Amino acid sequence: MHLGLDSAIPIPGFRFAGLSAGIKSNGRPDLALAVADEPAVVAGTLTTNLVRAAPVVLTAERLVRGRARAVLVNSGCANACTGEPGLAAARATTQAIADAIGARDDEVLPASTGVIGALLPQDKIIARTQDLVSSLAEDGAERFAEAIMTTDRSRKLVHVRSSIGGRPFSLLGIAKGAGMIHPSMAPATPHATMLAFLFTDTNAHPRALSRALGRAADETFNCASVDGDTSTNDTLLAFASGRAGTDAGTADEVPTALFDAMVAACEQLARMMVADGEGSQHLVELHVRGVATDEAARRVARTIATSPLVKTALFGKDPNWGRILAAAGRADVSFDPSAASIRIGDATIVEGGIAVGREAERRAHEVMVHGSYRIDVVLGRGPGKGRYLMCDLGYDYVRCNADYRS
Amino acid sequence: MHLGLDSAIPIPGFRFAGLSAGIKSNGRPDLALAVADEPAVVAGTLTTNLVRAAPVVLTAERLVRGRARAVLVNSGCANACTGEPGLAAARATTQAIADAIGARDDEVLPASTGVIGALLPQDKIIARTQDLVSSLAEDGAERFAEAIMTTDRSRKLVHVRSSIGGRPFSLLGIAKGAGMIHPSMAPATPHATMLAFLFTDTNAHPRALSRALGRAADETFNCASVDGDTSTNDTLLAFASGRAGTDAGTADEVPTALFDAMVAACEQLARMMVADGEGSQHLVELHVRGVATDEAARRVARTIATSPLVKTALFGKDPNWGRILAAAGRADVSFDPSAASIRIGDATIVEGGIAVGREAERRAHEVMVHGSYRIDVVLGRGPGKGRYLMCDLGYDYVRCNADYRS
Repeated sequence: MHLGLDSAIPIPGFRFAGLSAGIKSNGRPDLALAVADEPAVVAGTLTTNLVRAAPVVLTAERLVRGRARAVLVNSGCANACTGEPGLAAARATTQAIADAIGARDDEVLPASTGVIGALLPQDKIIARTQDLVSSLAEDGAERFAEAIMTTDRSRKLVHVRSSIGGRPFSLLGIAKGAGMIHPSMAPATPHATMLAFLFTDTNAHPRALSRALGRAADETFNCASVDGDTSTNDTLLAFASGRAGTDAGTADEVPTALFDAMVAACEQLARMMVADGEGSQHLVELHVRGVATDEAARRVARTIATSPLVKTALFGKDPNWGRILAAAGRADVSFDPSAASIRIGDATIVEGGIAVGREAERRAHEVMVHGSYRIDVVLGRGPGKGRYLMCDLGYDYVRCNADYRS
Repeated sequence: MHLGLDSAIPIPGFRFAGLSAGIKSNGRPDLALAVADEPAVVAGTLTTNLVRAAPVVLTAERLVRGRARAVLVNSGCANACTGEPGLAAARATTQAIADAIGARDDEVLPASTGVIGALLPQDKIIARTQDLVSSLAEDGAERFAEAIMTTDRSRKLVHVRSSIGGRPFSLLGIAKGAGMIHPSMAPATPHATMLAFLFTDTNAHPRALSRALGRAADETFNCASVDGDTSTNDTLLAFASGRAGTDAGTADEVPTALFDAMVAACEQLARMMVADGEGSQHLVELHVRGVATDEAARRVARTIATSPLVKTALFGKDPNWGRILAAAGRADVSFDPSAASIRIGDATIVEGGIAVGREAERRAHEVMVHGSYRIDVVLGRGPGKGRYLMCDLGYDYVRCNADYRS
């Protein structure tokens, strides 16, 4: 398996476009379209937030078919909390795309991101439909990635090349962050707090693709957090064109190589999202083990990962382990504090529940100046282990969110 | 009932002191003592964080007796995660006080606040014991309040004058914040994320006082949050000297007037703590109703109150109600988003789940420039209601926490 970051490759069977439709007030690209030449197998995981945006409601309905032709994405407006007019706008815009590409209207899936509460400006989108469709290109994925950004500092693209039974296939992943990021997806009632799209030329059965997507999300996006806030618009979709002519696997399981490629792509996109979290300067991979179950370990990791006191300490490059242990202690998970150890990078700063000493903390501080590092929290000898991708909370987080609406 | 803010009154039977023992590196007062002339009835609620500081462990043991002579409080060092040496230091310092005032060692309760992980400097404290005891005074409560502060911008004092059966009594409350503030106390397994002390000259039975304290805390501190982080050192204690000669009530219930005074004092101290939360510029009283149960309403309120996106919007004076509704939607509580309404001050900005309009949001913004205001979130017609005292998250929160350890 070959993994490539930050750039796109063509995926046979798919074309992409992105342009500015004037939804964002700053004139940046805000409308993206991906079209499959033929109906592609599709699977999705959507927000479990009780407050679901109009595009999420429609996409949930349309995913049931297991096949789709296109996804239409806009940034600059979440079209959430917009009632019946919001649903009508999502229907009208996807209808316009369906007409333009010769598809059924329920073969076009909508996704939106931006401010909650504003109605989707459907006229602006419909006015650009022809331009959008006529600019579709096999190498258009970077424009697509650009047009779905909101507070992101950079585009998020990853590609994978691998093979199934000797036949090569490829997979392209595109995502956007950077706030309301706290995915917690599951195959059955999945949710996410971002937009992410996978395109592959493999074959797959819809149900197997859906199960694989849920599992991949659970191992990756599921344990990643920027701010602990779950969005109304989270959407993760996977499209498979079948053009690589690979073995489709069974109705329940995709081929292992496809699953591995999906996990690799989701992992990289999750890392990119957290590293590019609003105001984030440090991507920290937090590992917790030694408690009774994996679920308990993940709960401890989630509590630490969303603690404002821990996050500001990371911003300050301060190995303030007391905040880490205090957060673990309020996670409603049983452990013996006097058995706890904490390591930042290769510097063990807590052993037997107490401080190792100043020299160890000085070494930990040297690790914390880096943009990316690892923290290990061991709370005993139990078999449970879990991890979270987290980031720091600094001045730029406040700057980004104290006047977001403009 | 008369309520007085920001100042102390003498409480018959108690004397107070506060001074600098050199625990804080900046030379500010950091050691406080309150002494009852005779053993007072005492009740307490302590952190439920699994990681409990040494003073919390000792105080929990000593509260069982239901009577105590003194509380010794230091700021500048939490004496948490300090193992057996931490317990020994807490024992040695309270023993020194007990010797100096002629009490049994288990009649002196310790409480500490400050950085986690540093061992209590017992020699510094013991060296000042005589000075501390000799400076005890009936009017020393303001010095006590000053000496327990950490990141607080101001002292937190409240007093109540009321009567039981025609006999006057008084109650004095003293507290400190300002971070790791997310109390959630209960009579049985209580916790808090601050230090707070009540002193009254009423009579009370220990069990009744404990029950009353738990209920008072549940109605006040229990629904207050600065940062969502629960401390290792939370301690709320109530002392009753009996010097007012009031009716003690029953073994299970304190007189109503005493309970009301306790609630009033706790409410004011909770408001002061949240208003003075680290970096806080706005105290917001958030009310949620219309869901099935009070517990569900409080869960929604807690989720909104701890959302970084909501808190930064409050800092920005932005009536960004989409973030409020999105936070409600991830609280794992059932409601119909299309029935939701949101009011900031007297400006209704959401009705039927959608925006009322720009003029309403302009009026809401005008409310949000104030230091204190109310937000009402109504999610349907259910009987459940709950509230939270919350604050904003701005640059000063980051400034305060990115280099706390010095």
